[in-house]
Amino acid sequence: MQKQHLLKQLHHLGAIKYGDFTLKSGAKSSIYIDLRVLVSYPETLREISLALWEKVSALKFDHLCGVPYTALPIATCMSIDNKKPMLMRRKEAKSHGTKQLIEGHFQPQQHCLIIEDVITTAGSVMETIKDLADADLKTTAVAVIVDREQGGKQTLEQAGYQVFSLFTLSELTAWGKTA
Amino acid sequence: MQKQHLLKQLHHLGAIKYGDFTLKSGAKSSIYIDLRVLVSYPETLREISLALWEKVSALKFDHLCGVPYTALPIATCMSIDNKKPMLMRRKEAKSHGTKQLIEGHFQPQQHCLIIEDVITTAGSVMETIKDLADADLKTTAVAVIVDREQGGKQTLEQAGYQVFSLFTLSELTAWGKTA
Repeated sequence: MQKQHLLKQLHHLGAIKYGDFTLKSGAKSSIYIDLRVLVSYPETLREISLALWEKVSALKFDHLCGVPYTALPIATCMSIDNKKPMLMRRKEAKSHGTKQLIEGHFQPQQHCLIIEDVITTAGSVMETIKDLADADLKTTAVAVIVDREQGGKQTLEQAGYQVFSLFTLSELTAWGKTA
Repeated sequence: MQKQHLLKQLHHLGAIKYGDFTLKSGAKSSIYIDLRVLVSYPETLREISLALWEKVSALKFDHLCGVPYTALPIATCMSIDNKKPMLMRRKEAKSHGTKQLIEGHFQPQQHCLIIEDVITTAGSVMETIKDLADADLKTTAVAVIVDREQGGKQTLEQAGYQVFSLFTLSELTAWGKTA
């Protein structure tokens, strides 16, 4: 019920479009997903963040860590609404000062929950896991808004990470046929 | 009173340090400011965001726009708590797909309030203003947590932008002497 309501909103604000699209990989798709626009709709951003939080609130972890950029506001919203610390992974090393890629206060071997907007092959998530590991941080699990069901979940699970998704591409496809 | 409370917290969590420091510019300073750690303290992040919001809530603008990375969580918190749309300025153009630097939904000639953590010479803010202008967006004003009082405010004001700061370096210095 809540998911139907969220899908309707995402469609309404143009974050999910149905039609004939060519993805950056060159593949054809009948769904276009662009969650970058969520920042323009803070109430929906918050609802999405809350729904994603519900998926992971029982997990034990020390820090949230959003994959830049699209997932950063979602991770931030989850952090402030649930008083859970966040770490920021920069997309590139700083050219001056401390060269650290992970910002925020943490202790070695602490556990992180990674937040991502969409996983396809999970390449960006794997990069984030590596950056966290380089800083001696462990990844507990990965929470994503949309799993495009193109192998990313399997890649992550085979590497030992649990994956929680709010929506799968199949669900978006099914909803598109009834909308 | 609220400012004293916030300064105490910022000092306690290591976002403001007093001592002998050499800044990246090579200049000496008796204060070291690192607001990147705020993400680890979501309650303080929210209090800071609320205090900054109070400085600008009477202004008319369409979008908040945080300067990446440190100000992004602050802008996000101001956005979701006040239901005000946000735009994300990427630090670098994407290498694939749409090349836009400004993400989110907007109309030409809309007004933005820029959020920044610290201004020194205001170089990053001026870059953001330019990126917004390139996307046909206007900057109304700039809100910063700390004005280091090293010419940034004057540069921005001379360019026609109002600047609102939560703290000045003078205030931090004065507080350090009494803490």
